[in-house]
Amino acid sequence: MKVAILGGTGDQGLGLAMRFAMNEANEVIIGSRKEEKAIEAAKEAMERLSTVQSKDTKNISINAMTNLDAAKEADVVLLSLPFEYTISTLKDLKDALKGKIVVSLMVPLASAFGDKPTRVITCPQGSVAEMVQAYLPESTVVSGFHNVCHKCLCDLENPINCDVLIAGDDKEANKTVVELANTINGVNGIDCGKLEISRYIEQITPLLVQLNIKYKAKGTGLRITGLEGKL
Amino acid sequence: MKVAILGGTGDQGLGLAMRFAMNEANEVIIGSRKEEKAIEAAKEAMERLSTVQSKDTKNISINAMTNLDAAKEADVVLLSLPFEYTISTLKDLKDALKGKIVVSLMVPLASAFGDKPTRVITCPQGSVAEMVQAYLPESTVVSGFHNVCHKCLCDLENPINCDVLIAGDDKEANKTVVELANTINGVNGIDCGKLEISRYIEQITPLLVQLNIKYKAKGTGLRITGLEGKL
Repeated sequence: MKVAILGGTGDQGLGLAMRFAMNEANEVIIGSRKEEKAIEAAKEAMERLSTVQSKDTKNISINAMTNLDAAKEADVVLLSLPFEYTISTLKDLKDALKGKIVVSLMVPLASAFGDKPTRVITCPQGSVAEMVQAYLPESTVVSGFHNVCHKCLCDLENPINCDVLIAGDDKEANKTVVELANTINGVNGIDCGKLEISRYIEQITPLLVQLNIKYKAKGTGLRITGLEGKL
Repeated sequence: MKVAILGGTGDQGLGLAMRFAMNEANEVIIGSRKEEKAIEAAKEAMERLSTVQSKDTKNISINAMTNLDAAKEADVVLLSLPFEYTISTLKDLKDALKGKIVVSLMVPLASAFGDKPTRVITCPQGSVAEMVQAYLPESTVVSGFHNVCHKCLCDLENPINCDVLIAGDDKEANKTVVELANTINGVNGIDCGKLEISRYIEQITPLLVQLNIKYKAKGTGLRITGLEGKL
């Protein structure tokens, strides 16, 4: 799958880029506002990947482009943007994202406005993913990858102990994103149904942030139980 | 622990009553608006418990009282009420609940008002638990037990595959409720911190309801990962 991560220079984006790149099913592009920042991040990712003992990393490559070029190039475009800059970033990308699967990773943490990361603000549409879909009516928005901690993503020697909860109004697009999630070692992609379910998925992140702080944990995650044999 | 379950005749309340009663550390009281309904529920619970093969059920007993008497009698009082009747039920119990640990199990599912159980309404205080605390300023409110499915609770032969997330502003009270949760076979009680965190805990239930419907699952639950050795 040709997948771009816009805002791929951040912790979460870079971690996902490396994890996707570790699976030969994926072609990965890191996008950034400035091309040189994307190139720098891709270089860092390649260096970190070269240290992975358990994997033949000879043939892994990660491309680097501006957000706009990455959006044009990829089939699936992940948005890993600071929540407060979501809409302003999308302004220039709207046309390039037409007809594409756009995956919304943002969580409306109140830290974006100087309050705590254990609090959220409420988007008028109910969730960030619904806000993005409203702004990009000609794209297919899928919500996912909010709850996988970046430290775990970057700990490349170990599998991820977290499910990736996915929501969206287009069943085929959800299926594609579940498949993408499942290319990460240890991850279980779960299609949760309609995009509005993203309200609950996004709000799991502040709970995990709270547990990370309270228990000084590297990175908490979650597993859904009771779906054995049903996915 | 002497624990009362008000609204203990409902599915969730009855399931919890049976599970608590299976551990000899607990004395269980089922409360109901009408005493005869509580007696009926306790009888049903005792009958179901007598069928459990894996357990010596000779000495298990469950008491039955009106909600008011149960509130007076117990040390820890669980509220397992229909969300929309929470405040009207508490009106007569306010005095009896003074100085007690009151555990809020309610989730503000929109089904209370004829909409879907995969949607929630927003309480003015942010969560039901915070609403209950505001109404009972002289009680210590702890939020918990929202996400354990009643079908799993009633399937007495099998352990529960779900964590119980707990939140409250009084650390000692949280600890007590974590201990109570841990008396249930398979459950892992997790203190998540301040009562306001209940906002996120309560909103996991509509997500699990959605997964139950989508995948025709008996009962989904969740496990928090990344806290191994830290609880």
